[in-house]
Amino acid sequence: MEVIRAKDKMRQVAEDWRREGLVVGFVPTMGALHDGHLSLIRRCVAECDRCVVSIYVNPTQFGPTEDFKQYPRPFEEDVRKCADAGVHCVFAPTDEQMYPAGFGTYVEPHKELSGCMCGAHRPGHFRGVCTIVAKLFNIVRPHRAYFGQKDYQQFLILKRMVDDLDFGVEMVLCDIVREPEGLALSSRNTYLSEQERKEALCLRKALRAAADAVAAGERNAEKILNAARNVLKKFPSVKVQYLELRDASTLKPVVLLDKTAVLGIAVYVGRTRLIDNVLLAPGRGEVGADDV
Amino acid sequence: MEVIRAKDKMRQVAEDWRREGLVVGFVPTMGALHDGHLSLIRRCVAECDRCVVSIYVNPTQFGPTEDFKQYPRPFEEDVRKCADAGVHCVFAPTDEQMYPAGFGTYVEPHKELSGCMCGAHRPGHFRGVCTIVAKLFNIVRPHRAYFGQKDYQQFLILKRMVDDLDFGVEMVLCDIVREPEGLALSSRNTYLSEQERKEALCLRKALRAAADAVAAGERNAEKILNAARNVLKKFPSVKVQYLELRDASTLKPVVLLDKTAVLGIAVYVGRTRLIDNVLLAPGRGEVGADDV
Repeated sequence: MEVIRAKDKMRQVAEDWRREGLVVGFVPTMGALHDGHLSLIRRCVAECDRCVVSIYVNPTQFGPTEDFKQYPRPFEEDVRKCADAGVHCVFAPTDEQMYPAGFGTYVEPHKELSGCMCGAHRPGHFRGVCTIVAKLFNIVRPHRAYFGQKDYQQFLILKRMVDDLDFGVEMVLCDIVREPEGLALSSRNTYLSEQERKEALCLRKALRAAADAVAAGERNAEKILNAARNVLKKFPSVKVQYLELRDASTLKPVVLLDKTAVLGIAVYVGRTRLIDNVLLAPGRGEVGADDV
Repeated sequence: MEVIRAKDKMRQVAEDWRREGLVVGFVPTMGALHDGHLSLIRRCVAECDRCVVSIYVNPTQFGPTEDFKQYPRPFEEDVRKCADAGVHCVFAPTDEQMYPAGFGTYVEPHKELSGCMCGAHRPGHFRGVCTIVAKLFNIVRPHRAYFGQKDYQQFLILKRMVDDLDFGVEMVLCDIVREPEGLALSSRNTYLSEQERKEALCLRKALRAAADAVAAGERNAEKILNAARNVLKKFPSVKVQYLELRDASTLKPVVLLDKTAVLGIAVYVGRTRLIDNVLLAPGRGEVGADDV
């Protein structure tokens, strides 16, 4: 497995693969790889002739008060995990490569998709995400790219970007990977104390309660949301940033659940911000990433 | 020569060329092709293995009060001109192909480069330009793309976009083509009456006067601008929108001409808006597109 730092080199390697007729798969990450990332990587390795994983903590998607500096960067370990998973190439550019002096062109995400949920609380975040992914797509030119459902809003925005700007990349959404007790895997879970890890179970428990209500036939959005809220009340130390039920394609607010929706949640557990979501189909309850 | 309407077809044709190792050149246009366009096209044909010309009047780069509807669309004639010039493929997509319902992702141009000159007077114009060119680049994936110096600010903004978003396209700037009396060729010249065509000579005359001053050693920006202003005074019916001397790379205002600058002008002749510019090097006067 090759570790590439220079974008021109990466561009050439991927272009050579395309020329040979090989299908190039891509998993963009910020490193600190956990089993969620590895599930994407393994699927990419299995489905494509070549798998590129990028490891780059992208400064433009962090707000000024966010955790850019403290974000974990266990690079050697990440590279080893990629090699073990059969990755063909790790692309790990420097900030100087990605944002040289004078940089100033950005990809502005779809306003409706990016104005709610995480986008409403992290101004500029999805602009940073779209910009870096556009750059990485232009360098790697993958046929397929793999994303986790935990960042469902991000996936929708990026899929819209790919369609709107004609990137010609097939976008693949993969199920959330969770710890046995239900906590969605996240590089930010390392910030949590033992006590906070217990409190963080509230996300999955709240989503499950809502999914159970939907499975039992509930279609009224307020009642579905209340099922989740009733769970969250039991965790008074957890500060809920948002809990929203939205159409799974358009992210418009749902009043009556008549097609697949996403119930998204963001909370602060101590000083750590955590997100989770569940896809809900009327009459069925929770459905997987393949159902949208 | 093939005329392609569907973007998937265009993508495939260009991808096949790349795979064969052919160098793909690209000239994006809004049609109404004149000898200015044809100079780009001929250079593209001469320098590349394959030449794609796009003909698409892009709605997102027109303001609500601008001439989108009346913009000339002599499509059959344009296609004939391309065929005669040795173009391999004309790409002429429909609005439904380029901006389907739900579209909403845009490329935001570099703020400093797009906030002055034409950008200050045409809000959203360069966002539309960047967005459509990003789309076209993603579909055609050219190795090289050709642009005219008449839209010098556009070229700088697009070159910045290519660098910032890592498109990997070589950007080629070509000299302005003019009528014998000096009027820069433009599809919008067809809007002019006979009398207005005479008044429109003021642009080139004003720029020439400034260039002569620079050739004679003038480096003070105000004095260079005054040389142009003195010419414009003789055309009282012409309304000047802007006349600005700016650094040829950064578009920062120039006070003392110590490296190559662009003197840009926009005027209204009757109801028709016309632009022109000249590249000025200290001590030398007017220089060509190859000098920047």
